[in-house]
Amino acid sequence: MKVPEPLLQTIKDEQRFLIASHVNPEGDAVGSAIALAEGLSQKGKTVRVFLKDGVPEVYRFLPDIELVETTLDKEFLKEAVFVLVDCNEPKRAALEEEDIITEKTVVIDHHETRKDFGRIKWIEPQSPATGMMIYHLLKAMDVNFTREIATNLYVAIAVDTGTFRYDNTTAETLRVAAELIEMGVKPGEVAQRIYESWPTNRFQLLCEMLNTLEIENNGSLSVAITTITEDMFRRTGTGVEDTDDFSNFARMLRDVDVSIMLRQDGPDKWKGSMRGKGKINLAEVAKALGGGGHRDAAGFNVEGSLEDVKRRLKEALKAAVAK
Amino acid sequence: MKVPEPLLQTIKDEQRFLIASHVNPEGDAVGSAIALAEGLSQKGKTVRVFLKDGVPEVYRFLPDIELVETTLDKEFLKEAVFVLVDCNEPKRAALEEEDIITEKTVVIDHHETRKDFGRIKWIEPQSPATGMMIYHLLKAMDVNFTREIATNLYVAIAVDTGTFRYDNTTAETLRVAAELIEMGVKPGEVAQRIYESWPTNRFQLLCEMLNTLEIENNGSLSVAITTITEDMFRRTGTGVEDTDDFSNFARMLRDVDVSIMLRQDGPDKWKGSMRGKGKINLAEVAKALGGGGHRDAAGFNVEGSLEDVKRRLKEALKAAVAK
Repeated sequence: MKVPEPLLQTIKDEQRFLIASHVNPEGDAVGSAIALAEGLSQKGKTVRVFLKDGVPEVYRFLPDIELVETTLDKEFLKEAVFVLVDCNEPKRAALEEEDIITEKTVVIDHHETRKDFGRIKWIEPQSPATGMMIYHLLKAMDVNFTREIATNLYVAIAVDTGTFRYDNTTAETLRVAAELIEMGVKPGEVAQRIYESWPTNRFQLLCEMLNTLEIENNGSLSVAITTITEDMFRRTGTGVEDTDDFSNFARMLRDVDVSIMLRQDGPDKWKGSMRGKGKINLAEVAKALGGGGHRDAAGFNVEGSLEDVKRRLKEALKAAVAK
Repeated sequence: MKVPEPLLQTIKDEQRFLIASHVNPEGDAVGSAIALAEGLSQKGKTVRVFLKDGVPEVYRFLPDIELVETTLDKEFLKEAVFVLVDCNEPKRAALEEEDIITEKTVVIDHHETRKDFGRIKWIEPQSPATGMMIYHLLKAMDVNFTREIATNLYVAIAVDTGTFRYDNTTAETLRVAAELIEMGVKPGEVAQRIYESWPTNRFQLLCEMLNTLEIENNGSLSVAITTITEDMFRRTGTGVEDTDDFSNFARMLRDVDVSIMLRQDGPDKWKGSMRGKGKINLAEVAKALGGGGHRDAAGFNVEGSLEDVKRRLKEALKAAVAK
């Protein structure tokens, strides 16, 4: 991975930097933004970090999160370099293009893009995480890797690779992670913070959901359906935000092709989240129910009784199999 | 980590090896045993692998598992070196000391031991996995690391470190894993095999277990206890091997210091698996109940009614907190 020369030159020449990342930031957004800010500060620069939604609870253990601001300082931005990390258009950071009142714009991202935002644009679709790019950038800047920087980078890389469980994990990913551990990161503590910090009631909600598991196998397709009702939210004192990632759970099942979570959103309103393993096109199924998405991850919102919704869902699945 | 010279000498001098590991083998036992067998075979040795319980379903994707036998070939053993991996007494491999009809005995293990079995005894309590020791041994033997060997070692190391999420993960662990990836291991595929290939009935067993969750919080220690009864095994058509890793689930709970799984092993027989987060020494708790283990992972076997076992367990926990 080669850090673009114009980026290094800009960092050398400029004094003020405003780093922003996307709304609903996950570990790669938060860790990359803060690590870059730490590195730039170390080089004597004045740095601000803007995350519209702030730092989510689960990442509040990260060092230096107090750098994060949730309102944009337009006066500062006027004289600064605007650096967008882990996304490639201002909209994703809850900003309009006209908010970016500076000519000096930089994009550092590992997501493919067709947008033309960014005077300097560094995109590495092969990189498992933006955090890996920031690692190389800080190395090229000759930054001293403190334990704080290392921890932010480790979390950025860990979250986007499922802590080294996803396909995007490479030998280089692990070597960089090893180096960050030597700089003071505690991998067990990080994993505990990220994966083992569920409030009890969220866990109870998961158990209740798993108890509703139904598996339908008609020979050509095996579908797992789980349900979360408003009653369950009430009983466990949880909310919609607690169901984040729940639709992935039934994927653990070897013989299941599609896992679907139906979440009640009102007396007769249901939100469906579908996850697949490539067997059928879930975007088609979602479309039939007024929703949309990708082949292996799609969703819809429907009205009706739970029985009615399940019936319509099964019909849509049947139609998708027949294609 | 230093491979003992006498071990290397024995490998050089001898021709026949019988490798055994513990009952209910998990990834570290299976992967270490097979990788060692592959390495020895490559050096022209005659090798047998004995695992009383065979290879559990979840690890049947591993290369060369057909080497594993579930009965002990005593005739072969007579003239062979007996190598016990990932445990340190024959009993753990479902063997009696008198079954070991050879003077040439080797123990390679990362579990602490006070047993005196093994003419050559290589114990590394600091090693995160026996697989790491086998890695160093094969390096010292100058074995050519095939993709098959690399995959077995990767799985051994991955399983015992929670795929690099546990405290025992070190920079060296990740460097070795990186090297194994370069030798052909596909980390995403391995993780999918290990973590997303559950038979439906195993998932049902997990749901039943989660429904038994009790959380005890006495102010100084929060303990989560889950139970698996023989009835649950019967109802779901599952067995002991399906509970592998279940004891880790309640660790997801933020406010839980210790998670304990009690598994019924007979009408009034229970096996306890305890997992901690550093707060108390679980090895002490296990010892009080006739078991053993590490600070954050320990176990025991006890007889009595479930209520009785829970009472004794809670007393032992209380005593460990007081220390």
